[in-house]
Amino acid sequence: NLVDAYVQKLQMNLDQIEKGGYEHFMLKEIYEQPSAIEDTYRGRMLVNEGIIKMSGIDDHLNRFLNANRIIIVACGTSWHAGLVAEYIFEDLARIPVEVEYASEFRYRNPVIGKGDVLIAISQSGETADTMAAIKLAKENGAFVFGVCNVVGSSISRVTDAGAYTHAGPEIGVASTKAFTTQITILTLIALKLGKEKGSINNSDFHMYLREMDLIPSKIEKALQSNEHILEVANHYKNSRNCLYLGRGYNFPVALEGALKLKEISYIHAEGYPAAEMKHGPIALIDEEMPVVVIATKKGHYEKVVSNVQEIKSRKGKIIAIVTEGDEQVSQIADHTITIPDTFEALTPLLTTIPLQLLSYHIAVMLGKNVDQPRNLAKSVTVE
Amino acid sequence: NLVDAYVQKLQMNLDQIEKGGYEHFMLKEIYEQPSAIEDTYRGRMLVNEGIIKMSGIDDHLNRFLNANRIIIVACGTSWHAGLVAEYIFEDLARIPVEVEYASEFRYRNPVIGKGDVLIAISQSGETADTMAAIKLAKENGAFVFGVCNVVGSSISRVTDAGAYTHAGPEIGVASTKAFTTQITILTLIALKLGKEKGSINNSDFHMYLREMDLIPSKIEKALQSNEHILEVANHYKNSRNCLYLGRGYNFPVALEGALKLKEISYIHAEGYPAAEMKHGPIALIDEEMPVVVIATKKGHYEKVVSNVQEIKSRKGKIIAIVTEGDEQVSQIADHTITIPDTFEALTPLLTTIPLQLLSYHIAVMLGKNVDQPRNLAKSVTVE
Repeated sequence: NLVDAYVQKLQMNLDQIEKGGYEHFMLKEIYEQPSAIEDTYRGRMLVNEGIIKMSGIDDHLNRFLNANRIIIVACGTSWHAGLVAEYIFEDLARIPVEVEYASEFRYRNPVIGKGDVLIAISQSGETADTMAAIKLAKENGAFVFGVCNVVGSSISRVTDAGAYTHAGPEIGVASTKAFTTQITILTLIALKLGKEKGSINNSDFHMYLREMDLIPSKIEKALQSNEHILEVANHYKNSRNCLYLGRGYNFPVALEGALKLKEISYIHAEGYPAAEMKHGPIALIDEEMPVVVIATKKGHYEKVVSNVQEIKSRKGKIIAIVTEGDEQVSQIADHTITIPDTFEALTPLLTTIPLQLLSYHIAVMLGKNVDQPRNLAKSVTVE
Repeated sequence: NLVDAYVQKLQMNLDQIEKGGYEHFMLKEIYEQPSAIEDTYRGRMLVNEGIIKMSGIDDHLNRFLNANRIIIVACGTSWHAGLVAEYIFEDLARIPVEVEYASEFRYRNPVIGKGDVLIAISQSGETADTMAAIKLAKENGAFVFGVCNVVGSSISRVTDAGAYTHAGPEIGVASTKAFTTQITILTLIALKLGKEKGSINNSDFHMYLREMDLIPSKIEKALQSNEHILEVANHYKNSRNCLYLGRGYNFPVALEGALKLKEISYIHAEGYPAAEMKHGPIALIDEEMPVVVIATKKGHYEKVVSNVQEIKSRKGKIIAIVTEGDEQVSQIADHTITIPDTFEALTPLLTTIPLQLLSYHIAVMLGKNVDQPRNLAKSVTVE
């Protein structure tokens, strides 16, 4: 034979192939975020034309523009995406927003009616509590819009309209790319409504589109801190507790960062709006309580600097997420992790990244089952 | 002399006299709650006449009845009272309510205008962040109503109208009677507006007044569990972490219970709406994580029973706050503390009591400075 035919056996199993060379699905999904976000806005955000096209919104534009208020219902990580959206909608589209835990909304006697829009957020589209909240809202005449990842899921079928996040399958139980793509889609909606209402002028609208278009490459850059984050993780892997602080747009990111650490490392982490510290939680601060502070230049930086100083003077250990070129917080913090600069409303898409990596590495170092943490299911289809 | 005149020197100093025989101001203030709540509603709630008289509301009734929505701003414990009020207002008066951290509200760009009513809650009436939120709301044309304890305080002077809680001086840094009297005054307002709007019928309105009138004696009864709570505290005093769960009206009570433990014992306690457990925090549960569950008969009892079972099957230790005569939860829980039965909307006034005592006893056993916890000030007059 001219060619020696032989079988080369691949030293990989199906699981490894699916993980695309990453050790865990969670890590793969963290690294997929630049492309996942591009997939979310592709075909919807036309940067050069200066247009956002979303049929779910276009077909029901008046329901949104005339809404008394928007009520967002969700659970877990999706609820945090809803909290980010509250800031974005109120700031850019000037529509009052109320964010509710789906489980609380459905069991109380909420004030909701024909003039209201309910946005339900769920990665799987199967979350039982969120489904029940949708049913209640529809019975009361509200217009219901779904934000789901799984195409054809129950929630996508029962809502009046909706938008898929197109993040691709998320296998890790701790949600990562679902979160950032949910924020992406909600930002597009807020921008579109803001432009229609005139609460954003044309020039700002164009600037937002161009900046959103840069987010995937800025996430790539944020991911380059991985090795440094590994070292930080090594410092804090044996902590029993941790606090996460943020303000404004990054207050919900602090909640989400804490939830990630809880979910996969079983360390008791809690998120707080930074300024609430002095109304109680600051009593917890001592040398054994690491504090993760999101301190981007855009988010009331001076106020956060003073929060960081208060923590430091009580001997707290500080891990700060800062903007490139930061000087003040970096001088005080024990560890700093930088992210690229962007518009304040878009910072959650970047500040989330190091927090995902931090909890991932701590969980791996502790030998936890990162993709399938104890007691948790990927999609909670029971009430 | 027929009478031997002599000087008997009192073995007490001024501090002890002020504490009225209690070891700490906090304990004194916990025990003052029955009379403090009576002081709050005296002259305002006329049970036999079936009337609630509050000049701050009567003089501006149309502002409240025509409000697009009520926005409540506060910090710390007062913020928790605001969250309880959200449930009460939406349920009884059918007015949409949004509760905001004052520090977050003031620094973002909130949607607020002439048709809105802002209720600011502050024990001291001097909270800097809350003051700033009031200023912002007034600039935007909103009507501002204050709920303060300290007469003549800054907030009571800058608001358009208001109501004092009349709880008497609160010296302990960890707020107790201020919280329950804030809830009392907000409940009176919700009942009054509900009656005016017709969302509560006359018969229910009368029943509420009669039941509210029984709350002080029911708190007396709840306080009789003190010795039992001391034993429970002894079991858990060395815990490093603790979760507090509640649903509906008692979700904010869970947050407040956790804050009390944080503030004075420096144990990392966190509150959660019970149904959110399965969306992440349940990963934390093991034999080292005590869970305080508020499981009154009225608040979606069956759902809470199933949450308690989930925790138990993951080896969590459970301290349950239950209604007198409870059987289901008491059988599963490691410790139960009972409170008298009342209407669901009024349960926070009772479920709060054992949580206050629990954190008090744990802090005393740990030798902490209960009345003046580290890092905390009674009134936060800085931003």
